[in-house]
Amino acid sequence: MIIVLRPEATEKQIRHIVDKVKKLGLKPMVSKGIERTIIGVIGKEDILRVQPLEVFPGVEKVMPVLAPYKLVSKDFKPEKTIVDAGGVKIGGKKVVVIAGPCAVENHQTFLKIAKIVKKAGASLLRGGAFKPRTSPYSFQGLGEKGLKILREVSKEVALPTVTELMDIRDIDVVERYTDMIQIGARNMQNFNLLKEVGLLKKPVMLKRGLMSTIEEWLMSAEYILSNGNFNVVLCERGIRTFEKTTRFTFDVSAIPVVKNLTHLPVIADPSHATGKWGLVAPVGAAAIAAGADGLIVEVHSTPEEALSDGVQSLMPANFNSLMANVTSVARAVGRSI
Amino acid sequence: MIIVLRPEATEKQIRHIVDKVKKLGLKPMVSKGIERTIIGVIGKEDILRVQPLEVFPGVEKVMPVLAPYKLVSKDFKPEKTIVDAGGVKIGGKKVVVIAGPCAVENHQTFLKIAKIVKKAGASLLRGGAFKPRTSPYSFQGLGEKGLKILREVSKEVALPTVTELMDIRDIDVVERYTDMIQIGARNMQNFNLLKEVGLLKKPVMLKRGLMSTIEEWLMSAEYILSNGNFNVVLCERGIRTFEKTTRFTFDVSAIPVVKNLTHLPVIADPSHATGKWGLVAPVGAAAIAAGADGLIVEVHSTPEEALSDGVQSLMPANFNSLMANVTSVARAVGRSI
Amino acid sequence: MIIVLRPEATEKQIRHIVDKVKKLGLKPMVSKGIERTIIGVIGKEDILRVQPLEVFPGVEKVMPVLAPYKLVSKDFKPEKTIVDAGGVKIGGKKVVVIAGPCAVENHQTFLKIAKIVKKAGASLLRGGAFKPRTSPYSFQGLGEKGLKILREVSKEVALPTVTELMDIRDIDVVERYTDMIQIGARNMQNFNLLKEVGLLKKPVMLKRGLMSTIEEWLMSAEYILSNGNFNVVLCERGIRTFEKTTRFTFDVSAIPVVKNLTHLPVIADPSHATGKWGLVAPVGAAAIAAGADGLIVEVHSTPEEALSDGVQSLMPANFNSLMANVTSVARAVGRSI
Amino acid sequence: MIIVLRPEATEKQIRHIVDKVKKLGLKPMVSKGIERTIIGVIGKEDILRVQPLEVFPGVEKVMPVLAPYKLVSKDFKPEKTIVDAGGVKIGGKKVVVIAGPCAVENHQTFLKIAKIVKKAGASLLRGGAFKPRTSPYSFQGLGEKGLKILREVSKEVALPTVTELMDIRDIDVVERYTDMIQIGARNMQNFNLLKEVGLLKKPVMLKRGLMSTIEEWLMSAEYILSNGNFNVVLCERGIRTFEKTTRFTFDVSAIPVVKNLTHLPVIADPSHATGKWGLVAPVGAAAIAAGADGLIVEVHSTPEEALSDGVQSLMPANFNSLMANVTSVARAVGRSI
Repeated sequence: MIIVLRPEATEKQIRHIVDKVKKLGLKPMVSKGIERTIIGVIGKEDILRVQPLEVFPGVEKVMPVLAPYKLVSKDFKPEKTIVDAGGVKIGGKKVVVIAGPCAVENHQTFLKIAKIVKKAGASLLRGGAFKPRTSPYSFQGLGEKGLKILREVSKEVALPTVTELMDIRDIDVVERYTDMIQIGARNMQNFNLLKEVGLLKKPVMLKRGLMSTIEEWLMSAEYILSNGNFNVVLCERGIRTFEKTTRFTFDVSAIPVVKNLTHLPVIADPSHATGKWGLVAPVGAAAIAAGADGLIVEVHSTPEEALSDGVQSLMPANFNSLMANVTSVARAVGRSI
Repeated sequence: MIIVLRPEATEKQIRHIVDKVKKLGLKPMVSKGIERTIIGVIGKEDILRVQPLEVFPGVEKVMPVLAPYKLVSKDFKPEKTIVDAGGVKIGGKKVVVIAGPCAVENHQTFLKIAKIVKKAGASLLRGGAFKPRTSPYSFQGLGEKGLKILREVSKEVALPTVTELMDIRDIDVVERYTDMIQIGARNMQNFNLLKEVGLLKKPVMLKRGLMSTIEEWLMSAEYILSNGNFNVVLCERGIRTFEKTTRFTFDVSAIPVVKNLTHLPVIADPSHATGKWGLVAPVGAAAIAAGADGLIVEVHSTPEEALSDGVQSLMPANFNSLMANVTSVARAVGRSI
Repeated sequence: MIIVLRPEATEKQIRHIVDKVKKLGLKPMVSKGIERTIIGVIGKEDILRVQPLEVFPGVEKVMPVLAPYKLVSKDFKPEKTIVDAGGVKIGGKKVVVIAGPCAVENHQTFLKIAKIVKKAGASLLRGGAFKPRTSPYSFQGLGEKGLKILREVSKEVALPTVTELMDIRDIDVVERYTDMIQIGARNMQNFNLLKEVGLLKKPVMLKRGLMSTIEEWLMSAEYILSNGNFNVVLCERGIRTFEKTTRFTFDVSAIPVVKNLTHLPVIADPSHATGKWGLVAPVGAAAIAAGADGLIVEVHSTPEEALSDGVQSLMPANFNSLMANVTSVARAVGRSI
Repeated sequence: MIIVLRPEATEKQIRHIVDKVKKLGLKPMVSKGIERTIIGVIGKEDILRVQPLEVFPGVEKVMPVLAPYKLVSKDFKPEKTIVDAGGVKIGGKKVVVIAGPCAVENHQTFLKIAKIVKKAGASLLRGGAFKPRTSPYSFQGLGEKGLKILREVSKEVALPTVTELMDIRDIDVVERYTDMIQIGARNMQNFNLLKEVGLLKKPVMLKRGLMSTIEEWLMSAEYILSNGNFNVVLCERGIRTFEKTTRFTFDVSAIPVVKNLTHLPVIADPSHATGKWGLVAPVGAAAIAAGADGLIVEVHSTPEEALSDGVQSLMPANFNSLMANVTSVARAVGRSI
């Protein structure tokens, strides 16, 4: 931690800060420059991070030196984490494609879509039973009934599943019916939910909040890991910016950035990021080229009839062509599918 | 709803859309312009809003005409809502100041601060028992113990209280101990939590999400009202932008915008918006000048010792000067305090 | 400047950096912490700022300690600068209101509006002759003819003027006809234009770029001051964010932030910030409450006929009520008008 | 154009708007819905676009139906434009890599770098003689001397060049010495500069402004095309967002979006977008996977000594590996290099 003092900071103020630092068991090093005096602090930065040092008289600003996360960082665990979701490995050499409709609507439609994505080469099946919707008047999902359909179809097509958990009260039922639990973008900082899935063994797919920094995203993963669950897959799904031709702005750089900082696998969701089916394939290919460990995409057999997110759902033919495209880009960057 | 077709849209595609619109019980009006054909739809826009019309062949874009919220809008209820929080009216002629520390730390400190803010003219007491913290390693609040202190001190100084609810499991205990329930920025789209507080009678202070549009904010209020609870106070607390000299960017225009759209009262949180105590007074005064119905500010007797948010907490002397400043601006815009 | 090294940085790499620092005539102080080695550099930070230190092997990040601007800072000149624009003082106790149409359209209309704003209490007259328009098909301004009308009307109503300079080739003609030169938001980083107005004595009103940080804004002012012209008035006019109910998001906190950092006066443009005439008065009042030294607002006698920005122009009656509102808020914060 | 009226709009107000529309030679179609009356306008939307209709009494909002650009759109010219820059075709099947240092520093260094990038497979040489710098104290480029070195080295290595034009006064000299003229991000809305390069025949590379929507970017291109110069290459270089681990956020979706809207070629600048050399290769590969027609990257033989942008410059070995990576991704998406 570096404490930068104001030009007019007095000796008394400096001593007050130095005393505080020492009282915390840390070692202050005062360095008087031409324009500013600086106090470097040696010792565990965590101790100081929770102190409101900016409030001490004479302090201009405080600059942390270390990242605030630990368990998710490569410093802590240099080798890559490979997450096993119902037998499918995420984070290895193989790129993983998770596909399915936005919401589970009924057994027949879901089975139809599941067969299509399985045939096209998807490794995991997605489908929401609990849907976070901006409007109270929109379709909110089938709830446990949807989870049962998810499980049945999962067995019929032999694909493990991922589905969203929105409410702590549903944790048992969601855990029972799925192979990987999704924490959605709007719940990325629902800290109590993070703590609870941290107590499970089941893999968790943690979506980046739509206006969350990469640091906050990793801190949310830290909540899960610090409770014991290291089976976390990060998912970049676009951030909110001023640009309005796409629903969000897919932050493709986040993929190599996160892979430099953490040992956790990172996948991409081009469907939610763009909000337009015509952009899913090029953005998905871009994510793989940038090093993503997989994709999660929305596919619907009849988007015109979809109860949610029809606009960003791929038709079967388009999903086939995405798979072909992604496969060839994956190979170009030394991965397989 | 206006449906704009692509230049190359065929007659068959147009008929397909027209049929769909009619099947939904709505009236399509096709208008062929020089460069585009447009279908205006007359009837309840809500029915169409949930249809993925962009996905229909030949459609270029779909433009909704109406706002998606109803109960929160002035169209629905033209007269202003005045919320009663433990006897204090929010939304009337009087501007309300809510003050207190970020977190309840212990009885003695909280009582001391409560007396200070009461004496300076605050109408409600704030203090968190459950704290949403970015880091799992930060102080997470005292929980129910904190709520008890809140209640005791509230009685001792005769100020009603507001405190944050983070977890559906805590709803009964929070409701029991406080006069107004705060839904924090990070939970603004925790839809299940919104539904639950919508079932209560107790007033709810709904903070704007740091990544939320005004429309989304009002839709979250709609979740509460649509479950029966009309006692909602909106709170602008800054949005995330590229500017980094302040923690967030206080969106002062949101105050008149929201007051034009809704009947609900709107207050401002300059402490979280700016993240710096030195900016709380000018930004608070600005909010009142722009028409806010009140402020919520963080005050601490010894910010250097605060367990959270010390950096943005006002010292007692600064809080006194904020009260003087705000009082005179309130009068300048025809309000009292 | 603080140089933070990677955990795996070698002794040789550290020596390489230390040598570089010494070669530049600065004093490196190596401090080995538990998790990172840090090199603090004592001496003129400017010398180091232009070095690509992040590129040196073993370096994790580089953290500057000082702000990059000098002449604009309060460290350099603690007393407030008061700019004299054609006899009107900007930055003193009196709050200044600059008003007029977006563009000078013709002598008759401009004179009519000028008389209205003069009568209502405006101190300066605005009106564009060169208009930066997003579309090549929009009205681009009257050019020199517009400047002549500006000058004539200025004399007729006895109000000094401000008008925008867009093109270095127009600098002489603009300087001749106006009392203050406006550099628009889209030219805030047109560095050659800044250098040229820096060579003049005439006051310059420098608008903040719509996606410029406060630091970049001050650096652009530094371009002007460093060429000799200290008569600079800063103007906050809204920044671009995700929120779309307003054209831009007026950054009200920028006003106290800038006043803490610099000696230059700061005014606000609520017309361009909001893009809606109904929001100009509350946002203008907010700016004054936050400490702004003045406002610049668009007024038109018949907005329906305006050739540009009619939507955000106040009608005379609304301008009168804004003046009343602003006057009373100005008094509330110890200013006059 | 669709004009949506307020619920309380009177018959007289509706007639006033209808009259205005007719007076402009357009055909209004009034449609009375349950909750709102709407006026659809048939005829040239451009005529209405410049009218401040929102200001008419009774109007709630105005929704344009068409994009505001014409010449740049695929509607105007469906076949792809291929730009010839000194013999190199941009926009065809071949992906083009433009490389070189940020600034031309001296003949020897520039020649050395030029030979490296030529050998590695670059098709064009970049190098700035006029540098837009945030700080007046940073290296501002060699000016005409730099242009001369650019030209000499261009001949020596037989690579055509691109260099930035910042100032209208330099247009002749820049045109004389280079094969393609770059308009930088900070000048994207320097409309007079756009008009001037629109009068040339020489190709123009138009960078997206860091604060510009895609629509504004295309409107700036429209300025150039509308003056007669159709040889425009668009360049996505990252937009400003809240995320701070990268200098800007590379908007990878912009590439397919722009390719759907316009006939112009689009390339990507991963060096400026990320600001970190370690991210240039993955983000560059992503851009090609998303359909970009080329890349422009910064390469320096000794980044430690670079006078600007050393931090984001690739070392020769890294540039070789980027070329290998990009070549294989280009092939994967059916392109060559």
